[in-house]
Amino acid sequence: MKTNSFISALECPKCGSAHDFRTQAHLCGCGSPLLAVYDLEAAKKTVTKESIARRKADLWRYKELLPVLDEDNIVTLGEGMTPLLPLPRAGKAIGVEGLLIKDEGVIPTGTFKARGAAVGVSKAKELGAAVLAMPTNGNAGAAWAAYAAKAGIAMSIAMPLGAPPICRTECAAYGAELRLVDGLISDCGKLVAEDVSRLGHYDASTLKEPYRIEGKKTMGYEIAEQLGWRLPDVIIYPTGGGVGLIGIHKALAEMRALGLAEGDPPRLVAVQAEGCAPIVRAFEEGREESEFWEGANTVAFGINVPKALGDFLVLRALRETGGAAEAVSDDEILRAMSALAATEGQFVCPEGAAAFAAAGKLREKGWIREGETVALLNTGAGIKYPGVLGG
Amino acid sequence: MKTNSFISALECPKCGSAHDFRTQAHLCGCGSPLLAVYDLEAAKKTVTKESIARRKADLWRYKELLPVLDEDNIVTLGEGMTPLLPLPRAGKAIGVEGLLIKDEGVIPTGTFKARGAAVGVSKAKELGAAVLAMPTNGNAGAAWAAYAAKAGIAMSIAMPLGAPPICRTECAAYGAELRLVDGLISDCGKLVAEDVSRLGHYDASTLKEPYRIEGKKTMGYEIAEQLGWRLPDVIIYPTGGGVGLIGIHKALAEMRALGLAEGDPPRLVAVQAEGCAPIVRAFEEGREESEFWEGANTVAFGINVPKALGDFLVLRALRETGGAAEAVSDDEILRAMSALAATEGQFVCPEGAAAFAAAGKLREKGWIREGETVALLNTGAGIKYPGVLGG
Repeated sequence: MKTNSFISALECPKCGSAHDFRTQAHLCGCGSPLLAVYDLEAAKKTVTKESIARRKADLWRYKELLPVLDEDNIVTLGEGMTPLLPLPRAGKAIGVEGLLIKDEGVIPTGTFKARGAAVGVSKAKELGAAVLAMPTNGNAGAAWAAYAAKAGIAMSIAMPLGAPPICRTECAAYGAELRLVDGLISDCGKLVAEDVSRLGHYDASTLKEPYRIEGKKTMGYEIAEQLGWRLPDVIIYPTGGGVGLIGIHKALAEMRALGLAEGDPPRLVAVQAEGCAPIVRAFEEGREESEFWEGANTVAFGINVPKALGDFLVLRALRETGGAAEAVSDDEILRAMSALAATEGQFVCPEGAAAFAAAGKLREKGWIREGETVALLNTGAGIKYPGVLGG
Repeated sequence: MKTNSFISALECPKCGSAHDFRTQAHLCGCGSPLLAVYDLEAAKKTVTKESIARRKADLWRYKELLPVLDEDNIVTLGEGMTPLLPLPRAGKAIGVEGLLIKDEGVIPTGTFKARGAAVGVSKAKELGAAVLAMPTNGNAGAAWAAYAAKAGIAMSIAMPLGAPPICRTECAAYGAELRLVDGLISDCGKLVAEDVSRLGHYDASTLKEPYRIEGKKTMGYEIAEQLGWRLPDVIIYPTGGGVGLIGIHKALAEMRALGLAEGDPPRLVAVQAEGCAPIVRAFEEGREESEFWEGANTVAFGINVPKALGDFLVLRALRETGGAAEAVSDDEILRAMSALAATEGQFVCPEGAAAFAAAGKLREKGWIREGETVALLNTGAGIKYPGVLGG
């Protein structure tokens, strides 16, 4: 059965060239990631709040705005429609009474990476990919390995030795080929690039295929739908590769064109760790791209990305929405983790804690104003990081 | 705002006496757990498939059939409506083409214990409890600690040293008082009983308050609703304390009275580990209660319960539905874990793997017949048990 997807093209956000979405596509000739484009004028006629409301509570409720063409190719573990919850005590403590958390720990594999993997693997299946390959800081690899196993597609993963140990166990259990690398995700990326050119693997690296971002953008749709199609004033996102933030920004534009959400878009905030803050630095210096961050190191391993391929799209999203970029220290992250667990029963991952820490700092600076609604992305479950709080 | 709960009494399933649900209640004078009773005749007029369908995808969509009276007392982290997914490859491998998994790993705190904790803590809050106390094999303690933190209620927990280490970290993070015991959950129970009588703590031990079961029963409602209010032929449940199975059995009776689900109820199956199978033994010997299992030991720590307070209710549920009780070895559990991960992208907990192993054995014996629909309960995420598959 057809999904009735309205995908119409792949487009390069750098040089503007169009690409075919019916065959496997990776980077543009100019080196930029590609973005999926939909015929939103046509979609507007069939995709309504009412039609969406009647559907199952997973991310495939937005299937007309996802790239998969045939429902038989959908590889799902039940991902999406994660809780959006008020944080009254934690919010009050930092002077943000309208604080919300989008809890991406409540999803298969325990992190938001499941969204990108669900859509990315489904589309790779539809395009006939035989072996998927990617570098990962852990959770993306685990998620892609899970969905590849469900799809019956082989998976080859390169992961830093420093990644959360549970992610190794997951990749192995899912039957993926796993290489551990004494280095950063950027070093893993070099290995994967070699395999892709030598063995013809399907390159599933961050933004080197256009569909992971389509899965991630559903966080934006869900936040809007869960708020009754009203938008929060601010969305705070812990930023490594930045795919989720790029995706949310894309979703905001699509929802506006579809008439699903009106008014000003939320101001988007990229949070990074002080030990690895290339996008914060580029934002502050007014540059369009970031520079490789030497000696990257933080307890929030998922955002330990020294140079993101989509950095220019992240920076563009921040500037277009009147957003901000904020760095927090590891100490602030750990204190935020403890505070959210003790006061809200939310055992978040260090990256989610970074978003909460940033909310406090931005409120203190007056950048977040009194009475504003602020949604934090907690990108994963704290239980995947048992060592971070000791124990 | 009122929830419009139709709770009408607490009833003893052993001696039949009625108890007040408006004050704190624990065991019946006869020593039996109490069960919540609802005015289902009245509920039938307002609780319909259509009214439920329009609600948020969490377990509070069944609020009229839950014990909380005031919505302000609902303590939620977004739990419920976990995925119910087909397992085509794994099912084919064991000759059960209609195999389904209810994935309770996709829930706050990563296990089905969140359901009992959400409803149990909410009701304890409504009843004015100040300090909750319980013994736990790990995951229930973690879940209750999370919801108690969200509610702003103190929590005191006793846990065996052998419980999954992550659960200690969780309890500590949530600010619970935690005692580690060199013994079994039954030894922890003795400590808690002392505290309850000495300090007046609210006894939240398994089945020593009547509301955890109400949270767990929503698994039964969800399975039915997710199948379009049709029931599967068989439901297989890994059984320690057995609360989920008792709850599902209760939900089946309620749904029948409410006209939500028709036809024969599913045959319920209790799965235990060969190293701790008191209910399997009692079932086979035709007894109404189990006996304490000496030297209990299994890799599936969540079902390492040597004697369950609600054993007679579990045995009654099995017999009333024409069900079965099946023991599986640790080796079978580990092989089932690997098989589900590699073929279905499902990294289940050892208890969920036990349910899959039992499905294979029951099919082999011919007890599960060709063409039957069989739903497995995976009670938690495999990521909470990193050591079980090595790593």
